[in-house]
Amino acid sequence: MGNHRTNHRTNQATGLLIELSEDGGSLYERLTSGIRAAIAEGRLAPGHLLPPSRALAAELACSRWVVNEAYTQLAAEGRLQTRQGSGTRVTSHPALHTPTRTTRTTTTRSTAVREPDRAPASPPPVVADLRPGTPDVAAFPAGGWTRSLHHVLTSADGEPSVFPPAAGAGRLREVVAAYLSRVRGLTVEADDVLITCGTSHGVALVARVLAARGVPHLAVEDPGWPRLHQVAAAAGLTTVPVAVDAEGLDVEALRQTDVRAVLCAPAHQFPTGTALSPARRRALLAWAEECDSVIVEDDYDAEFRYDRRPVGALAGLDRSRVVYLGSVSKTLHPGLRLGWMVPPPTLRQALLHALDSSAAGPSTLDQLTFARLADTGGYDRHLRRVRKAYRARRDALVTALDHHDVIRDSGRPVQGIAAGLHLLVPLPSGLDDRTIAEHLAVRGIATAALSGYATRPHPPALVIGYGRLAPSRAQWAAEQIAEVVGDELKASSTDQRATNEHHPHVSRALYDPRS
Amino acid sequence: MGNHRTNHRTNQATGLLIELSEDGGSLYERLTSGIRAAIAEGRLAPGHLLPPSRALAAELACSRWVVNEAYTQLAAEGRLQTRQGSGTRVTSHPALHTPTRTTRTTTTRSTAVREPDRAPASPPPVVADLRPGTPDVAAFPAGGWTRSLHHVLTSADGEPSVFPPAAGAGRLREVVAAYLSRVRGLTVEADDVLITCGTSHGVALVARVLAARGVPHLAVEDPGWPRLHQVAAAAGLTTVPVAVDAEGLDVEALRQTDVRAVLCAPAHQFPTGTALSPARRRALLAWAEECDSVIVEDDYDAEFRYDRRPVGALAGLDRSRVVYLGSVSKTLHPGLRLGWMVPPPTLRQALLHALDSSAAGPSTLDQLTFARLADTGGYDRHLRRVRKAYRARRDALVTALDHHDVIRDSGRPVQGIAAGLHLLVPLPSGLDDRTIAEHLAVRGIATAALSGYATRPHPPALVIGYGRLAPSRAQWAAEQIAEVVGDELKASSTDQRATNEHHPHVSRALYDPRS
Repeated sequence: MGNHRTNHRTNQATGLLIELSEDGGSLYERLTSGIRAAIAEGRLAPGHLLPPSRALAAELACSRWVVNEAYTQLAAEGRLQTRQGSGTRVTSHPALHTPTRTTRTTTTRSTAVREPDRAPASPPPVVADLRPGTPDVAAFPAGGWTRSLHHVLTSADGEPSVFPPAAGAGRLREVVAAYLSRVRGLTVEADDVLITCGTSHGVALVARVLAARGVPHLAVEDPGWPRLHQVAAAAGLTTVPVAVDAEGLDVEALRQTDVRAVLCAPAHQFPTGTALSPARRRALLAWAEECDSVIVEDDYDAEFRYDRRPVGALAGLDRSRVVYLGSVSKTLHPGLRLGWMVPPPTLRQALLHALDSSAAGPSTLDQLTFARLADTGGYDRHLRRVRKAYRARRDALVTALDHHDVIRDSGRPVQGIAAGLHLLVPLPSGLDDRTIAEHLAVRGIATAALSGYATRPHPPALVIGYGRLAPSRAQWAAEQIAEVVGDELKASSTDQRATNEHHPHVSRALYDPRS
Repeated sequence: MGNHRTNHRTNQATGLLIELSEDGGSLYERLTSGIRAAIAEGRLAPGHLLPPSRALAAELACSRWVVNEAYTQLAAEGRLQTRQGSGTRVTSHPALHTPTRTTRTTTTRSTAVREPDRAPASPPPVVADLRPGTPDVAAFPAGGWTRSLHHVLTSADGEPSVFPPAAGAGRLREVVAAYLSRVRGLTVEADDVLITCGTSHGVALVARVLAARGVPHLAVEDPGWPRLHQVAAAAGLTTVPVAVDAEGLDVEALRQTDVRAVLCAPAHQFPTGTALSPARRRALLAWAEECDSVIVEDDYDAEFRYDRRPVGALAGLDRSRVVYLGSVSKTLHPGLRLGWMVPPPTLRQALLHALDSSAAGPSTLDQLTFARLADTGGYDRHLRRVRKAYRARRDALVTALDHHDVIRDSGRPVQGIAAGLHLLVPLPSGLDDRTIAEHLAVRGIATAALSGYATRPHPPALVIGYGRLAPSRAQWAAEQIAEVVGDELKASSTDQRATNEHHPHVSRALYDPRS
């Protein structure tokens, strides 16, 4: 706070230290600045729960309105996440809190962030969440779900939901088996299906079984979805990253690892968006056969394919070596934590035991509610409806991005448009995708950098989830991205000149086009 | 099938071998007998899923009605469980399938079971499920729950339910913290609470953390709830049974084991129904302090106390060594799989990590729905309502049992009446409680034998859950129990005479009253 006089106030309930400058500005402005400073200086860490507005208002002897307005402003800036029912937290988006280049970030903040004392009356910018991996939960079929639940709760026999078999409610397993046979080309019966809390629960169980059998390593896609890698690692497996190219997982590279288990998403690889090519599918199954290996198939985003017929599940070609994992996280709601697993017959008993021993699983009321929703056609209707909506969102965003030279001129096409809920947007080479994501976050737009999902160097790209981006806002989003990229290109060339003046040798080596 | 000609039919889908006698009776009767025989002979094991009636009817080239009628009859006999939505299974109640005395059982069956050819038109007897551990799910507040869910799904911000913190939805943790402070004397904040899939999930997580820290053993109550012991064992701990007496867990015996972790239910021990006495509570906490040990508190049935004020949670006296576990399984619905854990501060990080790594947890929609139900007072109203109903059920059953000499004359009182949803009903000494439970099961009355929960010898007793026994049927249930006990006493004295004639020396030793 420099030479300003400050008033240190500690909230007793949370130990939150807020510095309120005593000169200049309304209490609202000083509180907003104080919290902003606490975040910038790391005194409020990402994920930290702020005190309820009531408590903080009492502490500061001010009206709740002041606290609520400050929280709203900081949420609009992307610094806080105010979520009804779960309080207000410091946003966990790393780009906001771990600037990679301190000087530039500082400069950017002072210009890009709407300081309350500069524009106290302006409406806060709308925050757009374009992070991948999240469907449009506003499209959740609330009516169909509650009607199905009501049926489950009031139907003649309340018993089936009390103590279901460890494998999951029989009716749900029948529904899932029928769905997989019909939609994913995986012909199975109810007894082949185990109900889980979702794909990551499935990976945790498989990893535990493999670790118990002495399997030390699990090959994973690089780039890939880190949560699944963390879960496998926590269960005792060492993950071995294997490259992904335009055809999907590099099976030749996998073959050279000597690893005997692999986790992959053949339907729609995250985040590259590629589908495993037919040749690679055959090669992967052949590898599993020759090396007596296990393939863990994350059937990610399989339900959303727009331009060609869906590719069947890998497990549909050869069940004997594939553990199939699916869920409703992308199709209905990630919060439901409802998924399933179809293990090879040889692993069924071990996985059922692991599931039973985990003593965890989805509510049997939810299991039967989903079964009822599917039975009555509500799930299929929902899928048709959202598939159409997502396709429109994808088209709008792809078209909007194509209007901007800085995106188009990267020399690489927008990737992953055939399926799923996200795009891989290439950035001009030489840019750091984390920095771009960071600058977008400062504007209140949450995205993800490809680097965040990869262990080896990749051309820079943003991973943009469009599931929640209305077509009418696609142009605005594309403009924001293009602006930030354009600014960064200019800053980068200024940096380049500055660097060349001071360290000509180092910079020449770093920027040698042949390297 | 003796000298009858039989027609062996194998169901292709399930490999189910059913022998259909070719002479005598309708197809319905022959099918019923065939399945009954398959169960008796162990070809159909407890828990085995029977083929859907459609499939079996197609296999046998008969109408579905025939198969459905056979299943209904066998369900009425307690041999099958037909549960809408989860298929038909061989009942897992061990008493039906593992006769301890083959000859007597055969006799009993031929007289007690309603054979279809004897009374083909009579309505099947009503099956009463008096197994402990299950609340009256018919009392589930369906209206309040669906209204709360509707609120969660339609309130302004759908976001909070998408990606909650690993510890669980913030709003639910606030609600649970407030509830524990108010009702269980455990003053904690939201951040102290972790949301789990229930008590067994909590035990699995604690066991995993303890095992990872090199703790080899977990002391458990004997008798106790076997599911929790299995879960702990599956996580790598060896369970060490410690006796329970009228004051609860024998802390002196625990002290002699050298074990450094114990799982117990101080509020209402299962199945003895005792509450840990104040002296024992102090002794247990002193033991933990002296031996640097961990107490895992299963706050079982704490919500249902009828005759005196509830005892606060052990964790409320000393949080530093107690992992507190609670759930809604007994208060709302076991199918919800929603529970919580309050670890000591020193174990919080490890348990949060274990929870996160398990990649399992209840639906965040359910978490917020329960929070809303509690916030709106619906949960408290429900608890008051069911507490009153359960008290009436308990009173009716205790009164009814007291009318029967064979129960009253056992010389021991009915135990565990002060709290919970079950009673321990003493049986005359010399009887085998498993045999009694078995005979009751043949009458369609499912109960549990104390021996099934104990590793060391105990005076015989039945564990009777009254949560689902309407007061109007208490007298009938008591009569059934008294009848079976009376019959068994007579048979036992006949056996005694027969045994004395054949093996006078052996039997005298076995029945020596001084032994």
